[in-house]
Amino acid sequence: MIPQTIQRKLIFFKKLKRKVVVLIAFLTDWGLKSHYVGVAKAVMKQINPKVDIVDITHEIEPFNVRQASHVLYRASLDFPTNTVFLVVVDYGVGTARKAIVMKTKNGQIYVGPDNGVFTVVAEEYGVQELREIANRDLFYKKDPSFTFHGRDIFAPVAAHIEMGTPLESVGPRLLYYEALRIKKPSMIGDHLEGEVAVVDTFGNVSTNIPFGLLVGLGVEYDDTVRVKIGKKEYKASVAKAFGDVEPGELLVHPDSAGFLEIAVNLGNAAELLQVSEGEEVEVWR
Amino acid sequence: MIPQTIQRKLIFFKKLKRKVVVLIAFLTDWGLKSHYVGVAKAVMKQINPKVDIVDITHEIEPFNVRQASHVLYRASLDFPTNTVFLVVVDYGVGTARKAIVMKTKNGQIYVGPDNGVFTVVAEEYGVQELREIANRDLFYKKDPSFTFHGRDIFAPVAAHIEMGTPLESVGPRLLYYEALRIKKPSMIGDHLEGEVAVVDTFGNVSTNIPFGLLVGLGVEYDDTVRVKIGKKEYKASVAKAFGDVEPGELLVHPDSAGFLEIAVNLGNAAELLQVSEGEEVEVWR
Amino acid sequence: MIPQTIQRKLIFFKKLKRKVVVLIAFLTDWGLKSHYVGVAKAVMKQINPKVDIVDITHEIEPFNVRQASHVLYRASLDFPTNTVFLVVVDYGVGTARKAIVMKTKNGQIYVGPDNGVFTVVAEEYGVQELREIANRDLFYKKDPSFTFHGRDIFAPVAAHIEMGTPLESVGPRLLYYEALRIKKPSMIGDHLEGEVAVVDTFGNVSTNIPFGLLVGLGVEYDDTVRVKIGKKEYKASVAKAFGDVEPGELLVHPDSAGFLEIAVNLGNAAELLQVSEGEEVEVWR
Repeated sequence: MIPQTIQRKLIFFKKLKRKVVVLIAFLTDWGLKSHYVGVAKAVMKQINPKVDIVDITHEIEPFNVRQASHVLYRASLDFPTNTVFLVVVDYGVGTARKAIVMKTKNGQIYVGPDNGVFTVVAEEYGVQELREIANRDLFYKKDPSFTFHGRDIFAPVAAHIEMGTPLESVGPRLLYYEALRIKKPSMIGDHLEGEVAVVDTFGNVSTNIPFGLLVGLGVEYDDTVRVKIGKKEYKASVAKAFGDVEPGELLVHPDSAGFLEIAVNLGNAAELLQVSEGEEVEVWR
Repeated sequence: MIPQTIQRKLIFFKKLKRKVVVLIAFLTDWGLKSHYVGVAKAVMKQINPKVDIVDITHEIEPFNVRQASHVLYRASLDFPTNTVFLVVVDYGVGTARKAIVMKTKNGQIYVGPDNGVFTVVAEEYGVQELREIANRDLFYKKDPSFTFHGRDIFAPVAAHIEMGTPLESVGPRLLYYEALRIKKPSMIGDHLEGEVAVVDTFGNVSTNIPFGLLVGLGVEYDDTVRVKIGKKEYKASVAKAFGDVEPGELLVHPDSAGFLEIAVNLGNAAELLQVSEGEEVEVWR
Repeated sequence: MIPQTIQRKLIFFKKLKRKVVVLIAFLTDWGLKSHYVGVAKAVMKQINPKVDIVDITHEIEPFNVRQASHVLYRASLDFPTNTVFLVVVDYGVGTARKAIVMKTKNGQIYVGPDNGVFTVVAEEYGVQELREIANRDLFYKKDPSFTFHGRDIFAPVAAHIEMGTPLESVGPRLLYYEALRIKKPSMIGDHLEGEVAVVDTFGNVSTNIPFGLLVGLGVEYDDTVRVKIGKKEYKASVAKAFGDVEPGELLVHPDSAGFLEIAVNLGNAAELLQVSEGEEVEVWR
């Protein structure tokens, strides 16, 4: 679906060579007001004092698994191949939802709840290995709390994997994972379809439609396209950068991960279009 | 008061053995908008370039020493025994309030202003050693600013202690520290009393009442209890996890630190109950 | 202009001696909701797995180059001499604005867009070397995105410089950098002039006027001064610390970087004065 990302990964392997970087990339909806992020890090540092943790963000909208799934994939594109992703957006903590570890075909490892949060990375990279977290020796306490699996299960399992614990010792293989229903990006006749993936701090509206698909419509930079969201329709310039259009003007452009993004130069596109994540988007020439 | 935490600490010591982890755990009300947190870290890294700093949170409500005191204790439960806690919630900076170092009986060390912020850790762990910070050789500048003791006094003293500076060289012993008046958790006849300790990002209302005290009332999971806050009274189910009750329903359950927490499944209990930190709470069977 | 900072730096050099600390200090307007900060760190860690990154803040008001320029200078005072500052407040990304590296005469190095964000550090420290970033071998990808130069250009260039890449290999020398128009602090007859530099989380209003200039007016602690902002005028006590005046009372005092700050004891001065950054300020005896 997005050939340029595969190419990027290949370049990546060459660059790294013998310089092995093992990071834990940490993504939650816990916010930074509570002490939860800090204690999860304290738990990991007790397993490996030298563990290197990079925060992706802790401000996923509470319980918004769809947003987390898109953000996780976008972030993952710029992390090294052997990164362990600790992802806790977990509205079902304490219920029967499984705890899983997923290794994708690009060599990255994902640790978190089985609630759909890994849908996009699984679809984009392919799943190489999937296991249920079951080995209580890897837990922070053998009897974990009912409400804080992030600290008690996911963080220590991620730290043990980063230290070299093989996946087979985490728990038994699984055949299925929970997947979100996501509007797949596609070209249908003379238009493109997809969904709003991420709205960023600036109100930029990024879709899951690869920008390169515009070529199939015969669209070039400086052309105008029509963007349909719900029952509304807008005209937007196809641009390389915000500054190519006037302040306040709508544009579509390739975002930093290669997706078609709808933005307003020096303005807030999400407010202008009254659009939110998960909404379907069409782009017509 | 909370036997399960003592037990946890014992397990802790065994696990650690020779793997010494020395962290600085950092807690303030400075927010992340200002550059204050960054420069305090820069000061510590000039004393020990390898210092390992874990942020607990910097979003304590400004000047809210009571909130900080409860959050500090909860976070401390998951940090290793020799952690140095740098705590700066300091409405009285530049006045006559003392600067102190407190070593608690569990082996943790606390650095900050003597304004009550260490009340809960002192009561829960017991105080082993208490000193006034007086040795200007440990300061960032011998003449510290009047308004930023976090950078000029507390951060460098914490870094020096983490590097091995003995407490006796920090300053003279003190006999007393400032303590907040906190509604102690207790069982009185057929009900429990305590106070609201922490309201988290999700609106979960955690008290300082150990969940285990419910056993003394003869209450079991799936029973219903009455929660009294101010003049209002609510019914709540006793549950292990949010998902055990219907969405929008009130529950009491053990939070991640073992305290009785009042919550709403997929909702915001603090908004529903219009409750804030420090308010007294009663739980009746 | 601010002799006390120069003196501070001299003490600094002595303290450091052979203990070399090389930090990357990271300042943006990206916020912490997006994954941008995390992926920029992932890129730097792929260049140097041991790189030590200290966040100054990522909550500069979006596109507010003036705010960033003042905050950067204030933060820089407490970072070591060989720190590499990665500064991305970049409303003009993708346009013709240059990407630059600036070495100041105090030995610090600044990496970011040429849009005025380095105005204050350049004026305060003096510029020793100025280069345009041109060497694509230092980029994350040889064809950087149009919208995320923070990840694709600035972060990797900062990491390479921190690793020892000499500035001459970054790109050709420049003779000019873009400078903001800033109301220079000065004493004119019987009053001081300057501008509001930074409003912090607590609503403290810090100016770019060195507090020491008050001496020239013959003002001493406990005197009263008149503060003029726009057409309004206020009386304020000259104090060492917030606690020296009554709660709710206005004061001027030296802030943590030695500048004249307007504050309210246990209150919010920015709200009281309805003042914002960049506004001109006068102080009369």
